This record gives sequence, C-alpha cells and structure tokens, in this order.
Amino acid sequence: MKIIQVIGFKNSGKTTLVEKIITYLTLTHNMKIFTVKHHKDEFDLDTKGKDSERHASAGAVGTIMQSPTTFALNMKQHSELSMENMLAVIHQLGSFDMVIIEGYKLKCYPKILMVRDVQDYVTLQQVQDIQCIVAMNEMVRQDILEQQKKQEESESKENNGKGKSVPVFVRHHEHEMLHWLENWLQEA
Amino acid sequence: MKIIQVIGFKNSGKTTLVEKIITYLTLTHNMKIFTVKHHKDEFDLDTKGKDSERHASAGAVGTIMQSPTTFALNMKQHSELSMENMLAVIHQLGSFDMVIIEGYKLKCYPKILMVRDVQDYVTLQQVQDIQCIVAMNEMVRQDILEQQKKQEESESKENNGKGKSVPVFVRHHEHEMLHWLENWLQEA
Repeated sequence: MKIIQVIGFKNSGKTTLVEKIITYLTLTHNMKIFTVKHHKDEFDLDTKGKDSERHASAGAVGTIMQSPTTFALNMKQHSELSMENMLAVIHQLGSFDMVIIEGYKLKCYPKILMVRDVQDYVTLQQVQDIQCIVAMNEMVRQDILEQQKKQEESESKENNGKGKSVPVFVRHHEHEMLHWLENWLQEA
Repeated sequence: MKIIQVIGFKNSGKTTLVEKIITYLTLTHNMKIFTVKHHKDEFDLDTKGKDSERHASAGAVGTIMQSPTTFALNMKQHSELSMENMLAVIHQLGSFDMVIIEGYKLKCYPKILMVRDVQDYVTLQQVQDIQCIVAMNEMVRQDILEQQKKQEESESKENNGKGKSVPVFVRHHEHEMLHWLENWLQEA
C-alpha cells in the first residue's frame, strides 16, 4: 500500500489536487484509494436520523453502522489518533492500493508540497521527505527554481555536490504532475 | 472489553433498549461504550460539505477525517466486514469498556433477545448464547414463562434436569433489566 501526503498552508489547493489525483488514478489505473484528512475544529458527526445517532445521543462514545455497501464509523475523542493507528485501522478494513494523506505536515511519509509563494517554500522546505513541489503559478515556480539553484550551489560546496532539487510543477498544469506521480508510484 | 448483542425482529424495540442501556451505564458507571449496528440497505455516507466528501466524490473508496475531538470514517464496500474485523478496528481506536451490537443475530456473543410475541421467542430461541429475554408486555412475558416451563419439564426428562431458563423482563420495566445487566457485567 503506497502512502503519500499532500501538504501546504491554507488555500494552497491541497483538496483540489487530492481530488485530481484520486480521479486520475481511479479512472486510469483502477486504484482503490483511501484518504485521511485533518480538521482543526470539531466537526458535525453527521448521523442525523440514523439509529447510530440515537446511540451517540444516548452517550455512546463511538458508533459503527454498516450495510452490504456502506460502512460508517463516528467517534468522539479527547486526543487525536496517531497516523500509525489510522493506517492500522485502514489495514483492518480491507486491501487498498494507496493512502493519500491531506495535511499532517510533521508526519514522515513522502510528500507533495503545495506552495502559494516562495515564502511558503522557504518555511516548509525543511519538512521531511518532499518528493515534488506544486507552485501556485509559473511566477512562483520560477522563484522556487531560483531558490533551489542558490541552495544547490551553496550545498554543493558543503556536501560535495550531494544537494538534489525536487521537481517543481505548476498547479494548473496538473498533467505534468500526474505523469510524474505515475512514474513515482512505479518506482516507489 | 465486554460485548453484548441486542437482537430481535423489526419493531421489537432494539434501538430504544440500546439507548436506555447506554444512558444508564454511561451515567451511573461512567462506561465508555461503542456500538455496532447493522443496516439492511445502503445509507447516505453523510459527508456533505466536507473536504472528505470531495475525496469520496472524486472516487476515493474510503475517507477518514479527524479533529482533536471528532473522528469519522466512511467507506464504500462490496461485502460486509466481519464482526471480528470490526472489533479489531474498535480495539485500534482506543480503550472502551463495552461494545453493544444491535442486530447480527447469527453472531456468537452473549445476547439480550427482544420478543414481540411468543412466536418471536419460538423462532429465535435457538440463536446462540441468549442471556435474557425482554418481552413486549406482561402478557407476552407470561406466555414465554409458560413456554419455558414446558420446555424445562421435557428437557429435565431428557437431560437429567440440566435445562435452565433465562430471566424474562418486560420492555417498559427497564429498571429490572438494567439491574440484571449490572450484575451480569460484574460476573461476566
């Protein structure tokens, strides 16, 4: 099961890119994809009118409801589940080709980094295991390429040429990024 | 983690009893309860307006969304998860005092059997591990007690007196049933 993260600050286009990746890999490679998304605030557990809502309203901490075609689990919690725990849960649920994690910057899985401007890139380039960058537009892409070039030059002096830049794509040219992702998935 | 099932035919009062059990054990024993409920038909996965809905609409088979206080998992499936799988999932999610399963007659956990009439009792008495019976009203309770008595008499001839009837409660006198359940939980 391949795991990839899509990270970036608010309004950097994470959900839209995740949608494009899901649609593409589902339609062209028939992949079974699970997604994990972080939400800062409490959200509505949405069990309205279902018996599981009655269980929850009565005080159940968690509810599962399943039919032959649908499975829903809702739970109130005091602290977040770890990513490892969530992946173990997904593993219990069946066999999937890929998990796409939207958010969770500090986790250690391979990442697509979405940046609105070069400042985002500077702030986030230290997160672990960035595999590619998706810039807001061509101008931002050029800024990042320049930044990468400078860093490569200074790193090559220190590290004997080991500094290696990752590919930079533009948000609205998603086909280049998707093509890169296909290759990455084959190699990973 | 204690596990109990509440089974019975449609409109036998299962969900209402499960609500009463949850409310009682949550308030008086501070128990953390998880519930599992079966649904015959496809139901709405209820992710409207959430980013996880966008993931699902794009083709993701499953989605997890979590905040510090809420956790929601939705999945499309081709066949139902086994009870063992679901219990393993619950185990991954945290530490709970009790799982109440509404439905799933054919599973092998201890059961509270809800009956609308003596015919329900006759039909369902062969399911595994019935611990108590909850009758629709006092008249049905009397019918069942009579039926139990007959069966005990015929069984005691065959089994050397080993036949043992389970307690029978009335649906609207839930306190007797809850008191029995408290004792049962202590002994189980």
